[in-house]
Amino acid sequence: MSTLVHRFHFFRASALAILLGCSLMVNAEPDDPWGTPYIGAQIFTQPGQTSEDLEGWFRTLKESDMPYCRLRLDETHMHKGDGTWDFKLYDTVFEMADKYGIKIFADLFPKETSDWRLAKFPQNKAHLQEWAEYIKQVVTRFQKHRSFYAWVLQNEPGSYGMYPKSDLSAELMAEWRAGLEKPTYVSQGYAGSNGCDELNFQRYYISWYLKWISQQVRQYDKEHELHVNTHSIYENLPDYDFPAWRKSLTFLGASCHPSLHYGYFDRTQYPMAISLNCDITRSGAGNLPFIVTELQGGNNTYSGINELCPTKEEITQWIWTSIGCGAKGVVFWTLNPRAVGGEAGEWGMLNFQQQPSGRLKAASVAARELIKHKEIYATAKPLLAPIYFLYSKETFWMEQAKQGRPGDATASEGRLAGGMIKSVAAWYEALLENGINCHVAEMQDFDWGKPDHAGETIILSHQLSVPSRHWEKLRQFVKSGGRLIADGLTFFFDENHFSVMQAGFPLEDVMGGSLQEIVANRGDFSLKLNNESHLPANLFKGSLHVTSGKPFATEDGTVLAMRNAFGRGTTLWIPSMLGMGARHEGNEALSKWLMAELSGDFAKFPIRFQTWQPKLLMRTMKTSEGYLTIVVNKSSESKNVSIAVADSDLKPAILFADKLGAVTNQRLMIHPEETLVIEWK
Amino acid sequence: MSTLVHRFHFFRASALAILLGCSLMVNAEPDDPWGTPYIGAQIFTQPGQTSEDLEGWFRTLKESDMPYCRLRLDETHMHKGDGTWDFKLYDTVFEMADKYGIKIFADLFPKETSDWRLAKFPQNKAHLQEWAEYIKQVVTRFQKHRSFYAWVLQNEPGSYGMYPKSDLSAELMAEWRAGLEKPTYVSQGYAGSNGCDELNFQRYYISWYLKWISQQVRQYDKEHELHVNTHSIYENLPDYDFPAWRKSLTFLGASCHPSLHYGYFDRTQYPMAISLNCDITRSGAGNLPFIVTELQGGNNTYSGINELCPTKEEITQWIWTSIGCGAKGVVFWTLNPRAVGGEAGEWGMLNFQQQPSGRLKAASVAARELIKHKEIYATAKPLLAPIYFLYSKETFWMEQAKQGRPGDATASEGRLAGGMIKSVAAWYEALLENGINCHVAEMQDFDWGKPDHAGETIILSHQLSVPSRHWEKLRQFVKSGGRLIADGLTFFFDENHFSVMQAGFPLEDVMGGSLQEIVANRGDFSLKLNNESHLPANLFKGSLHVTSGKPFATEDGTVLAMRNAFGRGTTLWIPSMLGMGARHEGNEALSKWLMAELSGDFAKFPIRFQTWQPKLLMRTMKTSEGYLTIVVNKSSESKNVSIAVADSDLKPAILFADKLGAVTNQRLMIHPEETLVIEWK
Amino acid sequence: MSTLVHRFHFFRASALAILLGCSLMVNAEPDDPWGTPYIGAQIFTQPGQTSEDLEGWFRTLKESDMPYCRLRLDETHMHKGDGTWDFKLYDTVFEMADKYGIKIFADLFPKETSDWRLAKFPQNKAHLQEWAEYIKQVVTRFQKHRSFYAWVLQNEPGSYGMYPKSDLSAELMAEWRAGLEKPTYVSQGYAGSNGCDELNFQRYYISWYLKWISQQVRQYDKEHELHVNTHSIYENLPDYDFPAWRKSLTFLGASCHPSLHYGYFDRTQYPMAISLNCDITRSGAGNLPFIVTELQGGNNTYSGINELCPTKEEITQWIWTSIGCGAKGVVFWTLNPRAVGGEAGEWGMLNFQQQPSGRLKAASVAARELIKHKEIYATAKPLLAPIYFLYSKETFWMEQAKQGRPGDATASEGRLAGGMIKSVAAWYEALLENGINCHVAEMQDFDWGKPDHAGETIILSHQLSVPSRHWEKLRQFVKSGGRLIADGLTFFFDENHFSVMQAGFPLEDVMGGSLQEIVANRGDFSLKLNNESHLPANLFKGSLHVTSGKPFATEDGTVLAMRNAFGRGTTLWIPSMLGMGARHEGNEALSKWLMAELSGDFAKFPIRFQTWQPKLLMRTMKTSEGYLTIVVNKSSESKNVSIAVADSDLKPAILFADKLGAVTNQRLMIHPEETLVIEWK
Repeated sequence: MSTLVHRFHFFRASALAILLGCSLMVNAEPDDPWGTPYIGAQIFTQPGQTSEDLEGWFRTLKESDMPYCRLRLDETHMHKGDGTWDFKLYDTVFEMADKYGIKIFADLFPKETSDWRLAKFPQNKAHLQEWAEYIKQVVTRFQKHRSFYAWVLQNEPGSYGMYPKSDLSAELMAEWRAGLEKPTYVSQGYAGSNGCDELNFQRYYISWYLKWISQQVRQYDKEHELHVNTHSIYENLPDYDFPAWRKSLTFLGASCHPSLHYGYFDRTQYPMAISLNCDITRSGAGNLPFIVTELQGGNNTYSGINELCPTKEEITQWIWTSIGCGAKGVVFWTLNPRAVGGEAGEWGMLNFQQQPSGRLKAASVAARELIKHKEIYATAKPLLAPIYFLYSKETFWMEQAKQGRPGDATASEGRLAGGMIKSVAAWYEALLENGINCHVAEMQDFDWGKPDHAGETIILSHQLSVPSRHWEKLRQFVKSGGRLIADGLTFFFDENHFSVMQAGFPLEDVMGGSLQEIVANRGDFSLKLNNESHLPANLFKGSLHVTSGKPFATEDGTVLAMRNAFGRGTTLWIPSMLGMGARHEGNEALSKWLMAELSGDFAKFPIRFQTWQPKLLMRTMKTSEGYLTIVVNKSSESKNVSIAVADSDLKPAILFADKLGAVTNQRLMIHPEETLVIEWK
Repeated sequence: MSTLVHRFHFFRASALAILLGCSLMVNAEPDDPWGTPYIGAQIFTQPGQTSEDLEGWFRTLKESDMPYCRLRLDETHMHKGDGTWDFKLYDTVFEMADKYGIKIFADLFPKETSDWRLAKFPQNKAHLQEWAEYIKQVVTRFQKHRSFYAWVLQNEPGSYGMYPKSDLSAELMAEWRAGLEKPTYVSQGYAGSNGCDELNFQRYYISWYLKWISQQVRQYDKEHELHVNTHSIYENLPDYDFPAWRKSLTFLGASCHPSLHYGYFDRTQYPMAISLNCDITRSGAGNLPFIVTELQGGNNTYSGINELCPTKEEITQWIWTSIGCGAKGVVFWTLNPRAVGGEAGEWGMLNFQQQPSGRLKAASVAARELIKHKEIYATAKPLLAPIYFLYSKETFWMEQAKQGRPGDATASEGRLAGGMIKSVAAWYEALLENGINCHVAEMQDFDWGKPDHAGETIILSHQLSVPSRHWEKLRQFVKSGGRLIADGLTFFFDENHFSVMQAGFPLEDVMGGSLQEIVANRGDFSLKLNNESHLPANLFKGSLHVTSGKPFATEDGTVLAMRNAFGRGTTLWIPSMLGMGARHEGNEALSKWLMAELSGDFAKFPIRFQTWQPKLLMRTMKTSEGYLTIVVNKSSESKNVSIAVADSDLKPAILFADKLGAVTNQRLMIHPEETLVIEWK
Repeated sequence: MSTLVHRFHFFRASALAILLGCSLMVNAEPDDPWGTPYIGAQIFTQPGQTSEDLEGWFRTLKESDMPYCRLRLDETHMHKGDGTWDFKLYDTVFEMADKYGIKIFADLFPKETSDWRLAKFPQNKAHLQEWAEYIKQVVTRFQKHRSFYAWVLQNEPGSYGMYPKSDLSAELMAEWRAGLEKPTYVSQGYAGSNGCDELNFQRYYISWYLKWISQQVRQYDKEHELHVNTHSIYENLPDYDFPAWRKSLTFLGASCHPSLHYGYFDRTQYPMAISLNCDITRSGAGNLPFIVTELQGGNNTYSGINELCPTKEEITQWIWTSIGCGAKGVVFWTLNPRAVGGEAGEWGMLNFQQQPSGRLKAASVAARELIKHKEIYATAKPLLAPIYFLYSKETFWMEQAKQGRPGDATASEGRLAGGMIKSVAAWYEALLENGINCHVAEMQDFDWGKPDHAGETIILSHQLSVPSRHWEKLRQFVKSGGRLIADGLTFFFDENHFSVMQAGFPLEDVMGGSLQEIVANRGDFSLKLNNESHLPANLFKGSLHVTSGKPFATEDGTVLAMRNAFGRGTTLWIPSMLGMGARHEGNEALSKWLMAELSGDFAKFPIRFQTWQPKLLMRTMKTSEGYLTIVVNKSSESKNVSIAVADSDLKPAILFADKLGAVTNQRLMIHPEETLVIEWK
């Protein structure tokens, strides 16, 4: 089993485990935030709020056993027109937090400019100095509170492709260029500007700015936690240089708002989308803990991309999915709806009578379960199969640059921006529906170069660009026993937008041949394997030129898929859009084919579904004494499911169920929309 | 019956009633325009037209018994490049009008700028002076003609949200700001800028400009009528400050072009859309008369938003619907198609041989009927039920500002701009299909503050913003016996974009509670009432916190609708989108529920349908001796309908029918597309 | 038969006919390009390519019997930053071309600006001088190569409505205005600016620029061919002033990329779209030869409007359709995919192993057949029925200017830009499916004014604007025996956007009446003829005022279609959108009605289908000894079709078939997607 579980991410361990009884009867203030996950919520502060309002909200958090609160330290609320500072509103906030024992994450939120797309970044050097003064003011004032817990350096730094051009950016651009090494790889002489320079700088710029803020904060506060939260991860992911960020942070986070961020997926897929979002965030966090910094807690009527009010069941599903992914906290957006402005009256978990909605009650139930079995959750870590979905930032950028007919609702989605991540998500979901949890990471973040990669699988789903710096790493990975699976247009370009296949595919030895042709035709098609089974595919049908590979799908003498042995490892290459095919036609065929390919790997896997379970999602964690499984049923039917449990001595016990689901050590029964939390030991 | 009919609008009465025989044998020149409604048409003037052309068109109007003509006094046709004026074309026009006894409405149409969105307003102070000179020139020249009748101060002042920024607008903005009172209501301290300031100024600016033109005209002409016409009313309504306008006018008008203005509705709904448009215009006119200044008379091929050629039956329906709403005139756009430019060869009621189309003949038939029974039509006034649909301009503005995904055809229409007015229209239509005619007015225009509002009903359909200045008025209305019905997100915001519910709903006593939560989910749903009947609803499902109210729809312990007794009145509150639900799923359930709620009110109502009649529209008027009813059948079937007539002595007689429809005092029979005009006495 | 075949276009005849045996065994280098059509391909040159790469590609062309190569002489590849020139890449290219006997078309491709929409034209006078220097450099350097064949003066000059405004354009505008004659026709005094001035200048500007380039080239090279290629012809056609161009060229060409240029048509219509494109190009070429300069040869994944990879069958269909239209060459885009940039890895006919794709092999098969039966193809000329589809550039412009709701996917397509050309294409296709090939030309290019037009038919399908300069020509055409057919809004406007019908239709005598009214209503309708048959029509239903005409469709007393005898000719007028109706509802009714109307004409026509054959396309050519027919089956079924062959002595022999199709002198059998080339003699 060692090969199967050696990929766990280990988080900073709990220093002290405190056993708590019934949560309502004890002080819920956490002593070790990084032990047991916690639940919290944003209190949205606005001038006009009274002390009574504020006290009521902190009391509600306390009574809900949600001991963490995120705040926006909005400079416009404290920095007056005459230049003086008036901290009264926030002083009251912190006093109330102190009084009720609530820990505060405070967002640094300097006075922004009016263009929201540029607002997150300083407009120029003068503006940067104003922001420095703001940071000094708030850090020195609020850090002393007992309730103070963490600085959120910036809210959601994703740029949607824009940053302010100014003296500041020009100076940084010059510095950045000066620091670049002259590339030794030049795409066989074809390389010119690849159009990604600006985007690479933007990525650098975001990391630089996070570092700058952290340095400002650390001038005045050496002690508290430093945090930032990603957002709209399926669009903004290439902006996020996680290894660079980690130097400025003590923990990482993510905003997860289905109505805003999960437009690529339908409502039954939101737990999957949260799972994938969390897996990416955990990978980005590296050895740091991560939390869900913003989780949609309330209704959005006019704001957001799509209207949505989560059900209480969804709140439960989203919390437990996040926990199952290793999140050490879940903070809802928002406890109280804001009163005026763009989201006024929306997103709240309190109703208009300031009473807990069903959603808040559901969150509170989860909060209490986490406290009740603190000893279990404190040590639980995600149990991930050694399967790695790797992505490249260059693929995001190339999709964006190359997409045909953006904005045209009748265009083929596979060739629009998002084609790659939708493809990855389909593969990921096909495994999740088997109860298999995987790693998802940027290529640079994989632990390359180990002497032995046996038992590990890398899946490159439609990675249009695989930069040259990863080629040799991939070769060594397979040579050292790894399995590499590729679909779609993976390997088509290097980092310079050079079509590598036409001048000799550098990984031909590894893959057993090279790409022969791509045939693009609108719509789905069925890819027939030599064993007579079929895989649905979409839009791009690629054929292969075989050198050492062994075909397993051929059509009219053309090879559509092959496997290859290289060193101690193997590769599988199907250069058609299987992910998009599964997205359109269902995951069944992809799931069954993939599980058959991987079957040897799972013989001793602790816990999974016996067979593919559509719309059933399972996350598994390793605890100090056994396992935890979290199961969510997004199908419209009750499911009675066989569980494959490697160790027949393991006995299940339900820690949580919201619809009377049940479990034995061979089967589980779960109702529609139900969430089950099961301990196995 | 007094409570039922005391809401009539009284128009300036006819001074002299002249009995006319067969219209073709008499001089159709009207002596009292405000007695009997008249039919007319725009003659579209362009250089290149000959005296013969012009004479032919005036002769056609005369022969068609359509004695009113609208003209555009286009400055570019008379103000030459060297600064001199050449009035020849228009001198001929007025001579012909004099000769054929046709009354002229002349549009003031100064030389505009090239940006059509800004063209309607002076670009700056210098431009304003040029326009003053133009006004002087044309007013002094043409007012002396016997045929001269009215100045149309401006064509269609609706701004689509834009006005020219200049020295002029800056000066006016300053004046306007100086004149504003400091608000005493500040949204509990939350009020900041609500984003409506600019829009409020724009509304002021339009009214100011109308006043300025009227003052210019009155320098030279103290005598003739002053007019202006609204347009695209379902989008531009918040621009129109009718009480302010009335000070500059002697009568009001509306452009009603289904192909351009009624995109929210389907073709079978155009009579309803005209009815609603006229009811709004009549309300805007106050004590002044109103007419339909432009009614689509011909085909539009390339111009207009949607292509459309009215049938002769539609022309008949639209005329009689307008008359039934109290319009004192209907002027078609256009008699002759323009020859060159954007609408060239389109919109005409003459065919290309200069002969009357079927549409013009149909209009002429109506014109003759109006003359034939002049004594009846002269005194007929709309018989309106004391039911008031009130809207707020702030709701229009907030919808515009807050809408998610504008331009996305797959977005939920209820959260796009237009959601409110579509909702109002559905309720309005549900009553119209019972033969019930209602008032529709901006909240400021309701006759608030009477000691007794018993028998009156106000319906606030999805009025997202109910400004604070109306709160106490609404309280007194109910206290004094009124009935208040609210659906959708009515009351959600005050005028400052403040979400009022979360800080104590100021009308909780009146409504019997407050809003608890809104749940927004895509699509329609069925709202089950406690009596087991259902109402279709859409998108927003609201629940209520009950204090004194009595629920009549509950779901899982949540109250979805309630009624409340307050003072001598009652309220009904269903905070879900019933209007949009009816729009999507049909009016039947809403109609039946509403009629049951209102049933007591209609016991003695003079004339209505016995039951809900889908796609049948009835307008009723009070005459000096009895009633007139106008019935239009937009269903695809002949209908045989029971009429509820309060006074069994009333006997019907058909004044007009275009498909052999028939009527007794209990039933009427009407064919598809038919219009019936029936006198009851 | 003389009347039927006297309309051939005669191309420059072959000077020398060389009989070749099996192509692979002989030197394929052509001696007389304008005799036998040839097949070629673009080699896409980019820095980074090695001599071996280039040699391989030229060898491939040679081995494929595709002896023509197009090149882009990209200035950025040779003009270095320090101002010096480095021709090394292109020197190698020409050396390889010399070595392998490949003829080069070289595109002049000066350094462009970054805005692709403006890039094709010089930005100002200074820029023009830079371009002159570039032309001097490349012309003097490369013309001396034995392989050098033709200068492509500019790639795809279509402007999409934009040209760079500068000192250059201002000077040209002034010259152009000065050269304009004062119009004698002024639209009865209505004419003002018609909005087309700018567009007319743009058309002039494009022609001027082509002339300027040709003059630059001729300073240094008096000898080689001069060429240019149109593109996106269904949008850009009004930009192309072919008679003016012909003065600067020795042969004309067209880019035909279904994925980019044929968005108006579905995939089964691409051969039709190529046929129409070629017929327009041949008409534009006049007495010059024409070729298909760019034909999509490979897959486009991200580039292009729609994704598409042609099948090998499509490649065959497109080649033979082009040949059948008289193309003297077909050059594919591209042999090798480009390596970096916007189309990297796309469009190639070589696979990534530099081996011929099935598409290249298919092209090669066609190339060899052309060489094998060189004596036949050298003299073959399109056999066109004397039927002329004429279009006006003004119609394109007016559609563009007047269209309602552009960009709205739910708008009626008949009133969007493209309505006219879609209408023409439907009529054209209805005839093609009878095996009837027609002329398609701009009105100015018809051979007006012959003493006898008997046997000729002009079809004006939805020609919204028929400029006044053609009125008398049309009158004389009919008077002299011609037949004129008009549908849709043909004749509605003159060239000044004047709606001519309302002031007396100048061709009333010819057409037998005038337009009475247009009724525009959304959707299709059925136009019932007096003989009880029906024609589908769309959107615009026009009625006629009859003077001398004889109605053949009436509805409620209104005339919807009529015929008229005038002089020795006749006219048919159905002012409804028959073309769009056929597009939506199928060609059958239009085809049958039209063939019945034209039946007399085809009694002795050499070869056609006995009856309408949906999705079967036939092109016929006259050879020195008989006929060639090219048949393509785009239906999904094998077809067994009766052929009407006028001369029963003609015997067919299959020269080429790719699916075992067969033919006798009465029937032919053809499989789905098959192409047949048949010689009859």
